[in-house]
Amino acid sequence: MKKIAVIGLGLMGGSMVKALKKKGKYKLVGFDISFDTLSLAQKDGFIDEIWNGKDKLDSDITVVALSPSKTIDFINEKINLLKKGSILTDICGVKESICAFAEKQAEKYDINYVGGHPMAGRELSGFSNSVENLFINRSYILTKTDKTNENALEELSEMAYGLGCSDITVTTPKKHDEMIAYTSQLPHILAGAYVKSPASDEHKGFSAGSYHDVSRVASVDENLWSELFLLNKENLLIEIDILLKNITEYKGALISEDKQRILNAVKEGRLLKERDIIKNGEEKPHNFG
Amino acid sequence: MKKIAVIGLGLMGGSMVKALKKKGKYKLVGFDISFDTLSLAQKDGFIDEIWNGKDKLDSDITVVALSPSKTIDFINEKINLLKKGSILTDICGVKESICAFAEKQAEKYDINYVGGHPMAGRELSGFSNSVENLFINRSYILTKTDKTNENALEELSEMAYGLGCSDITVTTPKKHDEMIAYTSQLPHILAGAYVKSPASDEHKGFSAGSYHDVSRVASVDENLWSELFLLNKENLLIEIDILLKNITEYKGALISEDKQRILNAVKEGRLLKERDIIKNGEEKPHNFG
Repeated sequence: MKKIAVIGLGLMGGSMVKALKKKGKYKLVGFDISFDTLSLAQKDGFIDEIWNGKDKLDSDITVVALSPSKTIDFINEKINLLKKGSILTDICGVKESICAFAEKQAEKYDINYVGGHPMAGRELSGFSNSVENLFINRSYILTKTDKTNENALEELSEMAYGLGCSDITVTTPKKHDEMIAYTSQLPHILAGAYVKSPASDEHKGFSAGSYHDVSRVASVDENLWSELFLLNKENLLIEIDILLKNITEYKGALISEDKQRILNAVKEGRLLKERDIIKNGEEKPHNFG
Repeated sequence: MKKIAVIGLGLMGGSMVKALKKKGKYKLVGFDISFDTLSLAQKDGFIDEIWNGKDKLDSDITVVALSPSKTIDFINEKINLLKKGSILTDICGVKESICAFAEKQAEKYDINYVGGHPMAGRELSGFSNSVENLFINRSYILTKTDKTNENALEELSEMAYGLGCSDITVTTPKKHDEMIAYTSQLPHILAGAYVKSPASDEHKGFSAGSYHDVSRVASVDENLWSELFLLNKENLLIEIDILLKNITEYKGALISEDKQRILNAVKEGRLLKERDIIKNGEEKPHNFG
């Protein structure tokens, strides 16, 4: 039975051990700065072993489920403890900077690194909010460069399906960061910007689904997300500028009171969204309630 | 048994007759430009009678479930056919302009007008997409002015509870329009602006809940929504400017590479959203799937 070590049992790492344990295909090792979390995870049967962070780690796959800065710290400090020829991956929401660093370090220690990013999450954090169904029908992104070991890519794809993911997206770190600026980082900035209107405080009784949807991800961990935003600054600025320009077109149309111009702006959005639904199907909201 | 006439059996009017029919408290009359829709609604037992639009209408409550311009046309052309002393309401997403007009006309014909706006909907339209549970646990806004008849307000509150709504918000047309610019119109503009990024076309495999949430309401009827936006131009421009300013703060923080400034921007959003959840509870996504 292959052994997977998960480093950091927060929302993501915790959900991973829960999902993989249920699958029953892997032996699971956990590591966390909180010994209470590790004890709880072991007591509840989500991990088979606790790693002490000092001895050699004999896992076949090591998943670092930490923030970007802590992922880099972990690789710097502990990569020498990983098994030669084993697989190392991370789950950071930015990939160019992390992959460049991790790939170089991994090469030195004869480790097969592949960058990863499961497109799953919720607006909560910590092991206590982790759930085994977090990855069901989600996409798992794996990065590929000219140094990527094909077998490692395959093993991680299998792990991703084991988590419950329905799609594996293999892409370059660069393309990942360009796309994620749009699909994930921009909506997080929007949610935060949106709730800052003074009207937000009085929305009760005047709001429905669309208020909920736009504002939902405002409640994210500022330490993690400010790191992610800065590490993807160039791509994010491009998407912010596109959005500002597009919103400003509605503003200009309103000021001009040009009904046809507003109608065209709304129609263009409708056609794009309809084409998207036809092409990709309607993504159902994920409700862990 | 009180008689309610619903004018226009589209998504909203159709859902209304379905919900009210199930409640069993009212006799229902339907009117629509499509005779096929009327026949279907009667055959399926959602309405008891079809109104021909020419004879006197003997309903106790008449709900105009049309777009703003068609609501005004209906009132202009048919208010003389309504029963003296009966109640007239509409469901338009803007209220100042509609209420001012409707109240004046209603007064002339001895009709009790109250503006209404159920905070319910879906990104689809027409009778075929109408559902009896559209209003469950939703808020129903009723407007009150110095001319509003208290008994009419009460009758309509009762009807709203009959639809399945959990809250009645009584407010002025002015306050309604200010709030709705923020809670509903702005998210619709955002959704349309968001899907216009070139990255949108490639999102599959890179997206999850937050992409879905922000883009969902892009697929709205441009005829209806361009009308609504123009009729609430002043309030909407205020909210657009606040949002542009708030997004621009994130942009400035990114350009300056000031980590503390980004962290503060994200943190402020998180605290506002958390305070909102504590104050108002978490609104669950509505899934009619």
